[in-house]
Amino acid sequence: MTDKLTDAERSDHIDPLLENDWQMVDGRDAIHKTFIFRNFVEAFGFMTRAAMWAEKLNHHPEWSNVYKTVEVTLTTHDADGLSALDAKLAKRMDALAGG
Amino acid sequence: MTDKLTDAERSDHIDPLLENDWQMVDGRDAIHKTFIFRNFVEAFGFMTRAAMWAEKLNHHPEWSNVYKTVEVTLTTHDADGLSALDAKLAKRMDALAGG
Repeated sequence: MTDKLTDAERSDHIDPLLENDWQMVDGRDAIHKTFIFRNFVEAFGFMTRAAMWAEKLNHHPEWSNVYKTVEVTLTTHDADGLSALDAKLAKRMDALAGG
Repeated sequence: MTDKLTDAERSDHIDPLLENDWQMVDGRDAIHKTFIFRNFVEAFGFMTRAAMWAEKLNHHPEWSNVYKTVEVTLTTHDADGLSALDAKLAKRMDALAGG
């Protein structure tokens, strides 16, 4: 689960994320997305729900919040790059932000 | 409440924070502190409690989290620098982190 993704797996798991506003981070095998909500309560509400999933997956984001904006970077330190866990957490975050 | 602090007010409100691991941010009239907890649950638990206070004060931090570490920067955009609200939120965060 924490193996670095192969090229084939990247096509399957990362490419769809890149088409959904996730971006590769310069100089790191990591993905980043900026989520913008209506206000702080919605932004932090999203973080709270995502935090539950992060803990459940035992896979935690690097993230920051300024008022209604949440910046998320995902990578897997154990794998020294993107793993299936990053794809899983990213998809979950997209679902939480849209729901 | 959102007026920029005077020099006298800084002595009263900011100096004690600087003695408690808050630091002035280079190039900004802002304060920063790194909080380190035992794990993600404790770090995010702190953020959740602090978020309630931030919303209650209608004064929100710039903050980031990576696993058990929370980095906080406080300033008041309306005041173009530190206000009494920053001192208040900083003290509250110290209390929450220690409690």
